[in-house]
This record gives sequence, structure tokens and C-alpha cells, in this order.
Amino acid sequence: MTLFERIASGEIPARIVHQDDEVLAFHDINPQAPVHILVVPKRVIPRMGDARDEDSALLGRLLLAARDIARSQGIDRTGYRLVVNHGPDAGESVPHLHVHLLGGRPLGWPPG
Amino acid sequence: MTLFERIASGEIPARIVHQDDEVLAFHDINPQAPVHILVVPKRVIPRMGDARDEDSALLGRLLLAARDIARSQGIDRTGYRLVVNHGPDAGESVPHLHVHLLGGRPLGWPPG
Repeated sequence: MTLFERIASGEIPARIVHQDDEVLAFHDINPQAPVHILVVPKRVIPRMGDARDEDSALLGRLLLAARDIARSQGIDRTGYRLVVNHGPDAGESVPHLHVHLLGGRPLGWPPG
Repeated sequence: MTLFERIASGEIPARIVHQDDEVLAFHDINPQAPVHILVVPKRVIPRMGDARDEDSALLGRLLLAARDIARSQGIDRTGYRLVVNHGPDAGESVPHLHVHLLGGRPLGWPPG
């Protein structure tokens, strides 16, 4: 099981902010901004490059869940950044696709 | 018309790398990495916060188009980062939703 599956199952605790049939979201344990939440599909897609064309709606729902969580976290007006990392140059860590939602402070450019 | 609609119509030139019925992709004119491409829906969604639940498949297709372009640009193995900016804290610029695809160099953390 991936780390995120263990969080979904309750085996590993996390500060969960959203959960539905398809999506789990919780605070990053190493936050890089006042709001830093990971949005994860419950069905494991190891990484962006492994996503299939049939996954389009699920991928979209990850972004829409991030949109909703940004509103509930009160950062919709101030702004936020969504980030997906794939592979070593991006510092991809857990082999379970996830979207980073960051906000609550000005975010510089370039994005890394 | 948004800047990106003008690029789609051919009114403003750009280095286009992909185009289909729903998606347009072209090199960023101010690249922040050796590969820096913008992936844009042809139908205008002004920003992430304006996306509707019915847009899930289209949003997913933006990510999948980025996945395909990363392969064709030869950065699938080395890695890449996908970024969506919403609002002032994220430095959102053009009011036409787009996904940044960045790769070809190590990308630092935090992502801005």
C-alpha cells in the first residue's frame, strides 16, 4: 500500500480536510505555505505519466476538489497554486499521484 | 478575446506544439525552464475558481495533453511539473485558465 492509501484507510493519521468516494485531501506534513494540502485519488495512479485517457474525469475532479477546498480554506480571493510533480527533476516523492494546493502567502515565479 | 483566443485564431503568432478540438498548447514567451509550455482549453474558463463541476473531463484532458507533450518533448523520464495559478498570490496573469508544463532542469521546492 502507498502512504496515501494508509492515510485513506486510517492506518496512518493525517489532518483530513475532505473525503468522498473518489478523492481524499489532507494537510501536507511538511507545509510550504500557510495552506498546503494534498489532493489524492483513492484509486492509485502512480504518477502523471501513468494516467490513462480514461482517467480524464477523475483527474479533473482532483482539480475541482482543490478549487472547493481553496474556498473552504478562505484562499479563493487571495489566490492559490496547484502543482503536480512527475519524476526526479520535479522532486516526485510518493508513487501515488497527488495535487498540491498551496496558498495563504505570495507564491514566487518561477514555481521552483 | 483573451490573448490565448487570439493565439488560437492565428491572430497572434506562437510556437504551437499541440492542437485539437478542445486544447491548444504552445511555448511560453517568457520561459522559466528549458521546456515551458502552456496548455489551454479552447473554450474559455477564466480561472480555476470559475471551473464548473461539468468541466471535470475537460480539466482532466488538459493534464493528459500535458502528459503527452512531456513525452514528445523528451522530459517524461527526467521529470516535469504542472502548475495552475489562481488569483493574485499565485501571480495569475491571463484570465483564461491554463496549465504550465515545466521541465528540462531540476525544479526546486517550494514551488514558488
